[in-house]
Amino acid sequence: MDKERFDQQIRFILEIDKLKSVVRQSYLLDGTRRENSAEHSWHVALMGLLLAEYAEQPVDLLRTMKMLLIHDIIEIDAGDTYCYDEVGVTDQSTRENAASERLFGLLPEDQMEEFRELWVEFEEQSTPEAKFAATIDRLMPLLHNYHTEGRSWREHGIRVDQVSARNEVMKDGSLQLWKFAMSLIDDAVDKEYLD
Amino acid sequence: MDKERFDQQIRFILEIDKLKSVVRQSYLLDGTRRENSAEHSWHVALMGLLLAEYAEQPVDLLRTMKMLLIHDIIEIDAGDTYCYDEVGVTDQSTRENAASERLFGLLPEDQMEEFRELWVEFEEQSTPEAKFAATIDRLMPLLHNYHTEGRSWREHGIRVDQVSARNEVMKDGSLQLWKFAMSLIDDAVDKEYLD
Repeated sequence: MDKERFDQQIRFILEIDKLKSVVRQSYLLDGTRRENSAEHSWHVALMGLLLAEYAEQPVDLLRTMKMLLIHDIIEIDAGDTYCYDEVGVTDQSTRENAASERLFGLLPEDQMEEFRELWVEFEEQSTPEAKFAATIDRLMPLLHNYHTEGRSWREHGIRVDQVSARNEVMKDGSLQLWKFAMSLIDDAVDKEYLD
Repeated sequence: MDKERFDQQIRFILEIDKLKSVVRQSYLLDGTRRENSAEHSWHVALMGLLLAEYAEQPVDLLRTMKMLLIHDIIEIDAGDTYCYDEVGVTDQSTRENAASERLFGLLPEDQMEEFRELWVEFEEQSTPEAKFAATIDRLMPLLHNYHTEGRSWREHGIRVDQVSARNEVMKDGSLQLWKFAMSLIDDAVDKEYLD
């Protein structure tokens, strides 16, 4: 065993424990608290696994799951930027790039490169896996919002046109899941969870 | 899209949100609270990915990650049985079998079978993937205990012989990680985190 390599791996594994303290806007389905980015990452990885058959193009499942498991790690330094926060998103990319340098930089070089590349691929939406992973990552908060009667939408005064615009990109990852998302949004409007 | 199949998949995805409310004995590294089984599952999946090179036999990474992501879902019904709880472990297997029937039974048949088989494989320790996944699943709480000065060990009066016996099985998944675990345990005794 290469001691220095192993120390780097363990240091990264300990560091990412902090993702369990990064709180998102979405509430648990039972409404008891907001969810954190670590448990969200677990949830979307499983969702990606279960719904891969609806991907617009065939996806490599292992790459997709890796991407979903690591895509939020940068939030340890950069925080969770709420997708409808127009101020926060202006410097989001700078903050997240610096975070990916520091955090993935804790790893041995080969693993650092793999994780950096997977994260960049997800951000740039450059592959079928990245597009499908992003679709899953958008569908999940929609489900959470719908099943908590639009709680985080209402708290932030989010309107239906913002939600529809935000989720338009789902089309590229899965036309079927995007159609389902649109039907959820319509239904949310009917039920007055969303204006 | 087969509507019934999709409804089953979504129902399962919504149901497993409850794993975020199953609290384990281990504390977050910053000591602020105990961790839950969903965020733990995310953490071990990534740990398995990063440390696969130390597996005793070559492992299929996708199967290993799936196993680590789903192995605790049964706790939604069966609860998290503390590994040193001598009463709790007596009916653990009965409770967990019933839980796996109900929870994985929410899925379409092919996915139900896949998840049930992965879970049984993990429980029976019948493959290199299951052995390695179990090694990772034991190493993680050891790291959490060590880096919180043995907090959950001390709270439950756990002794070093119990910890060593519990982790003996790690040998089968990775001799190198087991040796590292043993060195952590020795060091925990030196530092008086563990008697």
